[in-house]
Amino acid sequence: MGQIKRFLVGKPIATEHQHHERLSRITALAVFSSDALSSVAYATEAILTILILGGAAALGLALPIAGGIAVLLVVVAFSYRQTIRAYPKGGGGYIVAHENLGKLPGLIAAGALLTDYVLTVAVSISAGVAAITSLANTWGAPWVKDYAVEIALFCIFLVTLANLRGVKESGAIFAVPTYAFVASILVLVVYGIGMDLLFGAKPVEQHITPELLHGETIGLWLILRAFAAGCTALTGIEAISDGVPAFRSPEAKNASSTLTWMVAILVTMFLGITWLANAHGAIPNEITHETVVSQIARTIFGNGPIYFVIQVATAIILVLAANTAYADFPRLASFLSRDRFLPRQFSSRGDRLVFSNGILALGFFSALLVVIFQANEIAMLPLYAIGVFISFTLSQAGMVRRHFRIKEEGWKRGAVINGIGATLTAIVLVVLAVTKFTHGAWAVMVLIPILVVIFNSIHRHYNSVARQLSLEGADLPIALRRHTAVVLVSGIHRGVLPALQYGSSLAPDNVTAVYVNLDPDQTAKLQQRWRDWGCNVPLVVLESPYRSLITPLFNYIQEMDARYDDDVLTVVLPEFVPAHWWEHMLHNQTGFLIKTALMFNKNVVVTSVPYHLER
Amino acid sequence: MGQIKRFLVGKPIATEHQHHERLSRITALAVFSSDALSSVAYATEAILTILILGGAAALGLALPIAGGIAVLLVVVAFSYRQTIRAYPKGGGGYIVAHENLGKLPGLIAAGALLTDYVLTVAVSISAGVAAITSLANTWGAPWVKDYAVEIALFCIFLVTLANLRGVKESGAIFAVPTYAFVASILVLVVYGIGMDLLFGAKPVEQHITPELLHGETIGLWLILRAFAAGCTALTGIEAISDGVPAFRSPEAKNASSTLTWMVAILVTMFLGITWLANAHGAIPNEITHETVVSQIARTIFGNGPIYFVIQVATAIILVLAANTAYADFPRLASFLSRDRFLPRQFSSRGDRLVFSNGILALGFFSALLVVIFQANEIAMLPLYAIGVFISFTLSQAGMVRRHFRIKEEGWKRGAVINGIGATLTAIVLVVLAVTKFTHGAWAVMVLIPILVVIFNSIHRHYNSVARQLSLEGADLPIALRRHTAVVLVSGIHRGVLPALQYGSSLAPDNVTAVYVNLDPDQTAKLQQRWRDWGCNVPLVVLESPYRSLITPLFNYIQEMDARYDDDVLTVVLPEFVPAHWWEHMLHNQTGFLIKTALMFNKNVVVTSVPYHLER
Repeated sequence: MGQIKRFLVGKPIATEHQHHERLSRITALAVFSSDALSSVAYATEAILTILILGGAAALGLALPIAGGIAVLLVVVAFSYRQTIRAYPKGGGGYIVAHENLGKLPGLIAAGALLTDYVLTVAVSISAGVAAITSLANTWGAPWVKDYAVEIALFCIFLVTLANLRGVKESGAIFAVPTYAFVASILVLVVYGIGMDLLFGAKPVEQHITPELLHGETIGLWLILRAFAAGCTALTGIEAISDGVPAFRSPEAKNASSTLTWMVAILVTMFLGITWLANAHGAIPNEITHETVVSQIARTIFGNGPIYFVIQVATAIILVLAANTAYADFPRLASFLSRDRFLPRQFSSRGDRLVFSNGILALGFFSALLVVIFQANEIAMLPLYAIGVFISFTLSQAGMVRRHFRIKEEGWKRGAVINGIGATLTAIVLVVLAVTKFTHGAWAVMVLIPILVVIFNSIHRHYNSVARQLSLEGADLPIALRRHTAVVLVSGIHRGVLPALQYGSSLAPDNVTAVYVNLDPDQTAKLQQRWRDWGCNVPLVVLESPYRSLITPLFNYIQEMDARYDDDVLTVVLPEFVPAHWWEHMLHNQTGFLIKTALMFNKNVVVTSVPYHLER
Repeated sequence: MGQIKRFLVGKPIATEHQHHERLSRITALAVFSSDALSSVAYATEAILTILILGGAAALGLALPIAGGIAVLLVVVAFSYRQTIRAYPKGGGGYIVAHENLGKLPGLIAAGALLTDYVLTVAVSISAGVAAITSLANTWGAPWVKDYAVEIALFCIFLVTLANLRGVKESGAIFAVPTYAFVASILVLVVYGIGMDLLFGAKPVEQHITPELLHGETIGLWLILRAFAAGCTALTGIEAISDGVPAFRSPEAKNASSTLTWMVAILVTMFLGITWLANAHGAIPNEITHETVVSQIARTIFGNGPIYFVIQVATAIILVLAANTAYADFPRLASFLSRDRFLPRQFSSRGDRLVFSNGILALGFFSALLVVIFQANEIAMLPLYAIGVFISFTLSQAGMVRRHFRIKEEGWKRGAVINGIGATLTAIVLVVLAVTKFTHGAWAVMVLIPILVVIFNSIHRHYNSVARQLSLEGADLPIALRRHTAVVLVSGIHRGVLPALQYGSSLAPDNVTAVYVNLDPDQTAKLQQRWRDWGCNVPLVVLESPYRSLITPLFNYIQEMDARYDDDVLTVVLPEFVPAHWWEHMLHNQTGFLIKTALMFNKNVVVTSVPYHLER
C-alpha cells in the first residue's frame, strides 16, 4: 500500500522546502486567467443553446446579449480592482464577506464557492473533452464521443494525482498553453472576421443538422435566459484578487493591471467568437455534440493543422482551468477548517505539503458530477455561475461596508464603484436564480443553505469538545489504586498465552479469562486443556443462546466493572497477527468488532496483546 | 446501525430453534424443481437466438435440437437416480467428486458450482424481469424495459434480504407458484398445440420486427452452437440429489420418483414451447426485448388475463429459481469453509441461523453480473451451464468409480448407467466449451482454475496457522518481570490525564509521554503547561521534518523496546470518544492509524484509555 502511494504521489517533502514563487505580470496572467479565459470555449454555445428555442430568427440576438455580458464583465473587473487594493494578502469571497458582513454571509459565500469550484472542475474537464471529441468527430472518428465520460474521469484522475504530488507553482507550465490558446483564438477571430467582411461568411456544414425548433416566441424571458446562460463567462475573474501575494512588488498595482488585461482579452475573444458563430450560422448540435468553436474553426480554417491547434489548445486550457480549482478549493477548505467550520483533516498538509484531503474531496465530487451529467458540460451550466454570483455580490457588498467603515483616501469613489458592482451582480443573481431555477439551479440553492447548516454544526461540535477537554477548573485525578483484568479467549493456543501472562502481571489477584460457549463439545475440550495451559488464570464460561459473542461479554464486563469503585478495568484481547496483511481477511474480525464496541463502554481500558505468526 | 439491521433482518433466533421440515413428494417437487423448470422460460429462446443467424430456414431445426436435449435430460436424470440411492444424506457435486475422485476434482466441481450458482441468480432474475417487461411492452408500457437493471437489482436485494432473515423451508411458499407455473405453461402448450392442429397457427404480430439475417450458412457448427445454447435447460436437475434428506421416508425412493416426475414435466414443457415457437414464428426480438414465451402466449390467448397469469407465474418461478441458489451457494461455501478451503467466516451462522456471509457474497456477485450484462439474460447464457456440466461429469464419473470400489448389489448396471451419463455430459461439456468459448465461456474457464488455486492457498494458510498456534511442544512462557509504558500525547487536555495515570500505575519508574513536534509554537506551549498537568510523567518531544507522526514515533518505540530484554512495552493511547458515532469523522483518525501500524510491531502491547465526552 505504502509503495503504491509512493509510486503515485512521490516521496515526502520536508516542511522547510515550502516556498512561493513571485510572478511577473506576464506569467501571473497565465497562472490566474485560465479559468476566466477558458469560458470562451462554452459561453457562446450556452447562449445559443437557449436562443435556438426561439428558432433561427432568435439566433441574431446572441451578439447584443454577449455585449451586455461584456459590460457586466468590465463593471465587475473595476469593482474587483478595489478588492485587490484593499486586500493585498488575498481577498477571497469568504474572507471579505466574513470580515465585513459577518459570519453568516461569510459562510454563504464559502458554501457558494465550494460548490462552484466542484462545478468548475466538472464543467471545464467536460468542455475540454468536448473539444477533443469534436476534433475526432471532424476527423472521422465520431465513436470517440461514446467514451467522453471515461476520458473525463481519467483527466480528473490525472489532475487530482498531479495536485496530490504538488504541482510546482511554476508559471512556465501555464504560460505556454494559455498564450497558445489566446493566440489561436485571436487569430481565429481576427482572420475569420477579416475574411468574412471581405469575402462573406460561408455557412457551417453539418453532417447531421439539428432541427430548428419554433417552440418559444422571442420574448423577454428567452432573452433573460440566454443572458443568464452567457454569464458563465464571468466565472474565474475573481481569481486574481485571491492571489495578490503571488505578484511581484508592487503587488496590488501589478495585480490590478493584470486584471485589466485579462478582461480586455476575455471580452475580445468572447465577442469575436459570438460574432463568428452568428456569421457562420454555427449552432449547438445535440446529435454530434460538436462544439460551436469547433464548427467555426473548421469552417474558417478547414480540417487541417490550424483547426487541430485550436482544438488542442482549447482542451489544454480547460484542463488548466480545472487545475485552478484544485488550488482554490483546498485553500478555502483549509481556511474553513482552521476556523472550525469543516473537519480538521482539511487543514493538515500531507507529506507532499499539499492539502491532500481537500484535493481528494474535490476530485471525488467533480467525478460524481461528471458521471451524473454524463460529461455534458452544457447540461451542467445551469448549476454553474450561481455560486460565483453569490460570492461576487457578497464580496462587493462587503467592500462597500468596508469603505464606509475605514473611510480610506478616495473611499467615496471606491464605494460607488463597488456599490454599482454589487447592485449589478445582485440583479444578475436574481435573473440567474429565476431563469435557471427549474433547470437545475434549485439544487445549488438547496445545497448552499444545507452547507451553511453543516458548517455551523461542525463549529458547535468543535467548540463543545474544546470546552469539555479544557483543563480550566479541572482537578488532577486521584491515583489508581487497583487493576482488574479480563482476558477474552476464543480457545487456548500459543497466541493466547502472552495475553494471559499480561493479564496476570497487571492484576495478579484480580484476573479472569472469559470464554463464550457456542458449542458444548468445544467448551468441554477447552476446560480440559485449561488445567495445563491456563497460566493459573481462572476460566469463566458464558452462555449465549443466540450465538452472539458481544452481548454476554458485555454483560460480564459490566458486572466486573461494578464490583469495585476505585479500580480500573482492563479488557485484554489476545490478537494473533498474520505474516501478510491480506491474510487478515481469512480470520474472524471479531477482535476488531469487540474493540470498537468496547470504546463506547465507559471506564474500560482495552489492551491488545499481539502474537505474530512467522509465515 | 444495529436498529437498521434489526428492522431489515429481524430479531436473533436461538440456536435451539434450528429445525428441518420433512417434505412430501408433492411439495418436494415444488421446492427442488423451480431452478430446473424455470429454464423453460429461456432455453427455447437461447436456441432460436443462435439459429436465427442462419436465417428463417434454420429456425425449423429448433425442434429436433430440443429433442436431442430432451434425450440428454432423460439420460442424466437416470444417472442421478443412482446418486440419490448412494448418498441418502445428500450428494452434491463437491462431495461426490471429492470422496470418489480426490481433492482436486472435488475443488474443480466446487469452483464450477459456485460460479454457476451466481449465474443462476443473475440469469433467473434477469429472465424474470424480462417476463415482466415483455408484459409491460405488450400492454403499452415499453419504457419499463429501460429500468430492467434497476428492477433486477431490487429483486436481488429483496431475495438476499429474505434469505438473511431466514426463509422458512416451508413447502407451501413454493408449491403455489410452482404449480401455477406448470399449470399455466401446460395449458398454453396443450391448448396452443390443439388449436394450431385444428385451425392452423397464426403468426406472431410484432410492432417492430427484427431483421432476419442470412450471415451464416446452416451447418454442423450452427447446430452444435444451438444445441449448446439449449443445454441451459439441464441446469438445476441435480438439485434433488443434493436434498435427499429433506424427503419423507423412504427418502431415496421418494426422491427418485420426484426426479422422474420433474424431468417428465420439464421435457413436456420444453418441447411444447419449442413446438409452439416454431409454429407461430416467434423469434428473439432484440429491439423490443420481448421474450419468446410472451410472444407465443399473447398470440394464442390475446393480451388478456390468461397471458397476464402466464407472464407473472413465469416471473415468480424465476425468482424462486434464484432463491434456490441462495440455499445452495451458502451451504457449499460452508462445506468448503469447514474443510478450510474458504475463509472461516462462511461457516458461521448469523444471528438468524443462516450462513449470512455466503448469502451476502452471492447477492453481491450476482448484482455485479446483472450490472455488467445490463440484465440481459440471453447475453449471460454462454457463461452459464459450463459449470453445471463440469459438475455433472465429475459427479457421475465419481459414481462410476464408487460402483467399482464398493461393488454393491447391482453395481454393474449402476456403473453402466453412470458411465453413459458421464460420457454424454463430458461430450456435451466439450461442445459447450468449444462453441461458447469466444462468447464468454472463456471467462468461466479461466475463473474455475483461479478459484481452485485460491482454495488451495487458503487451505495452506489455515494449516500453517494451526501448526504455528499449536500448543504441542510449547513451553509455558516465563512470567513478566518488568513493564515499560509510553503514552502518546497530541497535546494536554482532560482526555490525556487518565492515560498518563494509567501509564504511571503500570510502570511507575519507567513511563514517558511522547509528543511529535509539528509546530514549534504549539510545542513550547505544551512544554509550559506540562509542569502543572503532566502527572509527573516525563515528556519527550520528537522532531518530524516531514510532518509524519508515525515514523518518529516508531523509531522512538523501537529504541525504548531495545532497552531491556525482559520487559514488555505497552503503548498507551489516550482516546477521547465523542458522544455520537458520526462525530468520529470530525476528528483525526491518527489514533486508529497508529494502532493498526503498531499491530505489525513485535512485542508491543497497545492500550487504549478512553475519555468519554458528554455531548
